[in-house]
Amino acid sequence: MTNDDPAALGRRTLFAAGTAGLALSAAAGGGGSASAQSSPPPIDTGVVRDGRVSFPNWRGEAEPPSPPPPAPLPPGERVGFALVGLGRLTLEELLPAFAECRYARPVALVSGTPEKARLVAAQYGIKPEAIYGYADIPRLRENGEVRAAYVVTPNSLHREQVEAAAAAGKHVLCEKPMAVSSAEARAMIAACDRARVKLMVAYRVQYEPHNREVIRLLRSGELGAARLIETNNCQVQGDPSQWRMKKALAGGGSLPDIGIYCLNTARAYTGEEPVEVFARIHTPPNDPRFAEVEDTVSFMLRFPSGTIANCATSYSAFNSKDMRVQFERGWADLENAYAYRGQQLRVAKRDGERQVVEQPRIRERNQFALEMDHFARCILEDRRPRTPGEEGLRDHLAMEAIYRSAATGQPVTMEPVQGLDASRGPEAEKAG
Amino acid sequence: MTNDDPAALGRRTLFAAGTAGLALSAAAGGGGSASAQSSPPPIDTGVVRDGRVSFPNWRGEAEPPSPPPPAPLPPGERVGFALVGLGRLTLEELLPAFAECRYARPVALVSGTPEKARLVAAQYGIKPEAIYGYADIPRLRENGEVRAAYVVTPNSLHREQVEAAAAAGKHVLCEKPMAVSSAEARAMIAACDRARVKLMVAYRVQYEPHNREVIRLLRSGELGAARLIETNNCQVQGDPSQWRMKKALAGGGSLPDIGIYCLNTARAYTGEEPVEVFARIHTPPNDPRFAEVEDTVSFMLRFPSGTIANCATSYSAFNSKDMRVQFERGWADLENAYAYRGQQLRVAKRDGERQVVEQPRIRERNQFALEMDHFARCILEDRRPRTPGEEGLRDHLAMEAIYRSAATGQPVTMEPVQGLDASRGPEAEKAG
Repeated sequence: MTNDDPAALGRRTLFAAGTAGLALSAAAGGGGSASAQSSPPPIDTGVVRDGRVSFPNWRGEAEPPSPPPPAPLPPGERVGFALVGLGRLTLEELLPAFAECRYARPVALVSGTPEKARLVAAQYGIKPEAIYGYADIPRLRENGEVRAAYVVTPNSLHREQVEAAAAAGKHVLCEKPMAVSSAEARAMIAACDRARVKLMVAYRVQYEPHNREVIRLLRSGELGAARLIETNNCQVQGDPSQWRMKKALAGGGSLPDIGIYCLNTARAYTGEEPVEVFARIHTPPNDPRFAEVEDTVSFMLRFPSGTIANCATSYSAFNSKDMRVQFERGWADLENAYAYRGQQLRVAKRDGERQVVEQPRIRERNQFALEMDHFARCILEDRRPRTPGEEGLRDHLAMEAIYRSAATGQPVTMEPVQGLDASRGPEAEKAG
Repeated sequence: MTNDDPAALGRRTLFAAGTAGLALSAAAGGGGSASAQSSPPPIDTGVVRDGRVSFPNWRGEAEPPSPPPPAPLPPGERVGFALVGLGRLTLEELLPAFAECRYARPVALVSGTPEKARLVAAQYGIKPEAIYGYADIPRLRENGEVRAAYVVTPNSLHREQVEAAAAAGKHVLCEKPMAVSSAEARAMIAACDRARVKLMVAYRVQYEPHNREVIRLLRSGELGAARLIETNNCQVQGDPSQWRMKKALAGGGSLPDIGIYCLNTARAYTGEEPVEVFARIHTPPNDPRFAEVEDTVSFMLRFPSGTIANCATSYSAFNSKDMRVQFERGWADLENAYAYRGQQLRVAKRDGERQVVEQPRIRERNQFALEMDHFARCILEDRRPRTPGEEGLRDHLAMEAIYRSAATGQPVTMEPVQGLDASRGPEAEKAG
């Protein structure tokens, strides 16, 4: 569609120039060059107010209005991030996602592969002097452009790198799983508290708009109580030499890597903590991929309100990342719930004498950009992140209970955690 | 997912630090800290080759591999664009889309509203001295950072602004409709030829991946010949004072604004030029929105191969932008074919004794970014754009025939255009 900025057109001259060239023999309507002589209306010019541009709604009332244009912070005012780790996720998703951020920008890279780091820095306009090795994390202190470090390395390295970045005075966003044990997670929370920096775990799905809508559906009660959550996260692993298949680096198999999404979102959807878990694990005995880590985990979470979540994860079942909530008065089905993109939501409910299935059209947004912008805004506005370190600690406690249940064949009761149970407060929930 | 860059980890120290903290009681697999001592494999480190980073496929053969990470040009090497016009499209879509470009970047703004231009320039990191008024387009010549101008103003202003930018030595990307008549379109092509600059019309849909797949389906012949194309583009207009409802600025109503998508893509899908058009127009007599321009246009295009396209556009029918091709051996249905996002493709065909409907999962990409990157690459590599000025001229000739048919009530025969019929050549088609 053609744009409109007639307020800006040097009116008399250009409007006249425009009308002079008209030759389209439109079958409808009259001449109407009178309108071109007068000042263009605000519907075309837009208005500047409170540092934002907005346009009055141009659509007829039958259609929803379009959202206002984005209002990114000027680049120099955005929160500078150092990316710690230059593997697939950083190169395929995070660095491209910064382009869609409005509050965050990449200003430094931490990598042990100088050739790769120099190439990537040039591609994304990062200064060559802002490339660091892993041993240099303490030197981030001297780089005033860096306000946050995003740790994107194998799981068993998170603790040391998070603590080093915190000690350098930087706020830390850490990939999931936060660590390889609840003990490590507690130590990381304590280290960031001591250093007075914010710690957030990169649970991107909690920032994804379709999942936010599911959370809203559960919390609003408009379909009644949620009785059952059924969800899975499966993908097929190939080369056994990948770090994910090495227990010393990954800490575990499918559960901490991808099953954690089922666990974390079941907790986020309900806003509750599980009181009991029950689990079974199946790992093919002679598959070289599974020499060190588990393959398939099925686990049930029971929540205080009575909601039950049945979760499954696998490294040998075909790509599937779906979620369904069975409510008292409807259901919600979210296809590709945990995928990087492609979420499709369907909601069933009663409509008079019929059942209808609605497909709300929710604009797809880059989850990584939303997540990084959330952390940037928490830093700019001194707010607590929606998914702080405590959120990672809780998942580690639950995963330990899942492994314990699978090992013993018995359900495991989860006790309330001392000093943690206020963490899912209203402040965290209202965060944008 | 957690990233991986173990090559980069200062191996001995950090790998040891990592393994020291392991406490996850995984139920499956053995110990395996041996792997952490050895060098990480290329599957984790990736490789740098020919100025690009790539990672070996980590997935099992059951699943398609993930695409390589993007390889954007360093910002200073990208083609600098001046945006001419700061209305809705520029603020809501184009400026945000540049963030997803790999070859293009915004470096200048042309606007008559200095307050708005200053705010927007700051938001997108454009220098304050690169803000121009409309009368200053000739001064773009002095700004070496600007290599292309993107004209995004009301239709009747395109000609003068395109010619001014070309005279200033800048390549020009012009919004659709290219002009308000075929005579203007011819003049613009000639002016750009004289100035030895490239001219491209912003037919974004021809760069959108789902539409590209439909083009591939038609051209490949794998479902046989395309017998029928059925397509519409409707949206409900509100405020009658908007420039789109003024004939002096828009040149026409729904046809040149949104119906042009049906026309242009029917031509692009088939790769043919229509030999006959037939059209009817209905405009409600007492609706203030339609005092100057037409509302609803239905038109049929007949192509030399026998394919018939039935197209419809309206400013008073609820939002709908769909397209369907009926082939000899299947059909393709593209929902939201012309929308900014949300395309959904379904393809029906025979599978043995059954009919199956496939939903190819095609990654959604920002069409505006693809379009601007295409023009940038054409400039960098001195190639002819896929949608040059001639593409706009052809649509103006067809629209004039459509209006003529509606006015006379008779079908209108379209003659081959002298000197134009090689424009849809193989060079234009292979352009990426």
